[in-house]
Amino acid sequence: MQYKTIDYQVQDLILTLSLNRPEQMNSFTVDMANELIHAFNRASDDDDVSVIVVTGNGRAFCAGMDLTREGNVFGLDESKKPTLADMQASDVIPGVSDTGGTVNLSIYDCKKPVIAAINGAAVGVGATMLAAMDIRLASEKAKIGFVFEKIGITPEACSSWFLPRIVGISQALEWVYTGEIFDAKTAKESGFVRSVHAPEELMEAAYTLARSIAKKSQVSITLARQMMLRLSAAETPREAHNVDSLAIFYASQMDGKEGVKSFLEKREPNFSSKSSTDMPDFYPWWD
Amino acid sequence: MQYKTIDYQVQDLILTLSLNRPEQMNSFTVDMANELIHAFNRASDDDDVSVIVVTGNGRAFCAGMDLTREGNVFGLDESKKPTLADMQASDVIPGVSDTGGTVNLSIYDCKKPVIAAINGAAVGVGATMLAAMDIRLASEKAKIGFVFEKIGITPEACSSWFLPRIVGISQALEWVYTGEIFDAKTAKESGFVRSVHAPEELMEAAYTLARSIAKKSQVSITLARQMMLRLSAAETPREAHNVDSLAIFYASQMDGKEGVKSFLEKREPNFSSKSSTDMPDFYPWWD
Amino acid sequence: MQYKTIDYQVQDLILTLSLNRPEQMNSFTVDMANELIHAFNRASDDDDVSVIVVTGNGRAFCAGMDLTREGNVFGLDESKKPTLADMQASDVIPGVSDTGGTVNLSIYDCKKPVIAAINGAAVGVGATMLAAMDIRLASEKAKIGFVFEKIGITPEACSSWFLPRIVGISQALEWVYTGEIFDAKTAKESGFVRSVHAPEELMEAAYTLARSIAKKSQVSITLARQMMLRLSAAETPREAHNVDSLAIFYASQMDGKEGVKSFLEKREPNFSSKSSTDMPDFYPWWD
Repeated sequence: MQYKTIDYQVQDLILTLSLNRPEQMNSFTVDMANELIHAFNRASDDDDVSVIVVTGNGRAFCAGMDLTREGNVFGLDESKKPTLADMQASDVIPGVSDTGGTVNLSIYDCKKPVIAAINGAAVGVGATMLAAMDIRLASEKAKIGFVFEKIGITPEACSSWFLPRIVGISQALEWVYTGEIFDAKTAKESGFVRSVHAPEELMEAAYTLARSIAKKSQVSITLARQMMLRLSAAETPREAHNVDSLAIFYASQMDGKEGVKSFLEKREPNFSSKSSTDMPDFYPWWD
Repeated sequence: MQYKTIDYQVQDLILTLSLNRPEQMNSFTVDMANELIHAFNRASDDDDVSVIVVTGNGRAFCAGMDLTREGNVFGLDESKKPTLADMQASDVIPGVSDTGGTVNLSIYDCKKPVIAAINGAAVGVGATMLAAMDIRLASEKAKIGFVFEKIGITPEACSSWFLPRIVGISQALEWVYTGEIFDAKTAKESGFVRSVHAPEELMEAAYTLARSIAKKSQVSITLARQMMLRLSAAETPREAHNVDSLAIFYASQMDGKEGVKSFLEKREPNFSSKSSTDMPDFYPWWD
Repeated sequence: MQYKTIDYQVQDLILTLSLNRPEQMNSFTVDMANELIHAFNRASDDDDVSVIVVTGNGRAFCAGMDLTREGNVFGLDESKKPTLADMQASDVIPGVSDTGGTVNLSIYDCKKPVIAAINGAAVGVGATMLAAMDIRLASEKAKIGFVFEKIGITPEACSSWFLPRIVGISQALEWVYTGEIFDAKTAKESGFVRSVHAPEELMEAAYTLARSIAKKSQVSITLARQMMLRLSAAETPREAHNVDSLAIFYASQMDGKEGVKSFLEKREPNFSSKSSTDMPDFYPWWD
């Protein structure tokens, strides 16, 4: 796929995924959704990618759904009357399924850690997209807003599931109810971003974090990512224990052997497992 | 219903619900529980109410269960021997079901956002009641305590479900184990309240927040409230995605049309949907 | 059982459980796992124990798995090929089940509150063990690290379930991905520990907290602990309401009677219920 709305650049095991409609403030379209899903799926099994940094080209991160288009801005087929049973029966219903949600489910399913470098405005789906990423850093120029209720619609992109896990239910409700746009400092105080940076230092900070992950075991990082995301929502820790046992059992016979050896020899490890081909048989355990 | 223990005042789409036993520090009784449930159910379908502010008349918010009454202070029928199967089979068992819990379930089910303005002491059920509300503001005079273990009983009112979602499991456990009474500053540091105010400025701060919600789309605010409360506890984001898709699909054909139009015309929107009559067919999706 | 790797000391209803391999920085072994499980199970039904303080003898809390042993450091039987179905069918599979997880499940099931006094380094399973404890205090000398990915393995001990409940999913992911070792100040800022103390003041701070719990009702504290841990992960507050109703109903007829009486008489209560023999019939409700 030749991307028109995003840019996919890999170097030193780090994929930089840039929203790339700078003249339109990287506003979100159905094309962008499809390209993002393609890119996250591709990176998931691209062995040259150990970690993903997402940012925006130009001065915005993503200004939300492009509302300036003619006609039906959400791309919905209003002749349909979908029910919950319809949604549960199908992964994606064209003209009905929330496009932001399909992007965020591709992030959730991705084997690689996802770091957001919020370079500027991130509103609407630009904000809910961030909530599905693992770790967020912000430029001092970042402005974030879950602005849906300002235009009479609801939050989407599975933000009801992702956002309260990051900032707690009360902060999430307040941002959603008011639709207020808040700055990087507020984002840091609430825990929505881990750190705030001068604009010219944002990407280097994101890459420093990415480099600390990039040379680790791809298989063990993938296992850890899916364990944390999925088992944190399990009803009891016994469900986590069953998966943990398998993860440690198999990982310790793979890159874990080199890991322990390098530790005892007081040298850097040299991991070799690949997420594309080497996942142990029990993965994905949730299917 | 003519309320004896609470006051129900509506102005400009904002309901002020005041606990109204000031001479008894608004201590909680079975009558107050019944009136609160009635009031939250009434507000849920009262189109003149878009948002609810709860506070206490006099110097306390709610001093907990009224322990000064003669006899059986909890109103329990000690001749019964209820089991978990009994509880699961019935919504409410008179003389058995926890009254604070039935109040908090009516808050959970309410279609309208609930803001707490904590004007003074809030202890016991006065504290656990707060945990079921969406957003909390405190006066500098607020004193809060989950004091149950001080008198040899357990926390109630579904606080095991609500409180850790706001402040994390460890802070919740410490407050419950010790029963200590803490001040507004500690409440702010833990995230239990969003902001602390001089006593004479508390209500205006609560109303400022309420006004930022009151003129939004009733249907979309109701959808957002129930999506955030319920789907944040789902096992996977796919469950959120199914509901999100329906919410965006229908909301964008209702108040969303006016929302997008007003955005493009750079004017304030004028929403008209009503939670009482206009909820889309898929609501309530959890039944 | 005569403990070789831990120390079990009870005084004034407080059990001090000390990891006791100071020359090996209290590094974790299969023997230590078995002794810890024994100790938590014993304390669970030991009426002389109302609350547990866990710490490390010497300068470390626990330096993680002992990687210096000959051969198979994780004690795994590599001839096996376990599946998720195997794990779900059995509580513990020798040579397969994660030993840190079996320890943490014994903490989760314990009837008594568990307070961690982190006196020094707590890395690997020394860190994930902390995540299962209720409340954590740290010495200024504490160093904490979820270092698994540094040696090519995955986090364990049900940390995917416990850790995000304490610090949120994004902080948990960052610590796991990077494996970085962080200090007490960072632990406090993230909410992983409640307070930081000079080394010589750590134990007194832990005991002050423990004493505020020790003389409360054993039955009501046990109910509260299990209610908070389990019902916070329920799908809806209705599940909490059912258990709350039973807990309040029975507790108020046990130590609650003395609690209300002592409150009205303005004196200290004198609770008498014992977790070993007096739990109401509905406990454990999750079986």
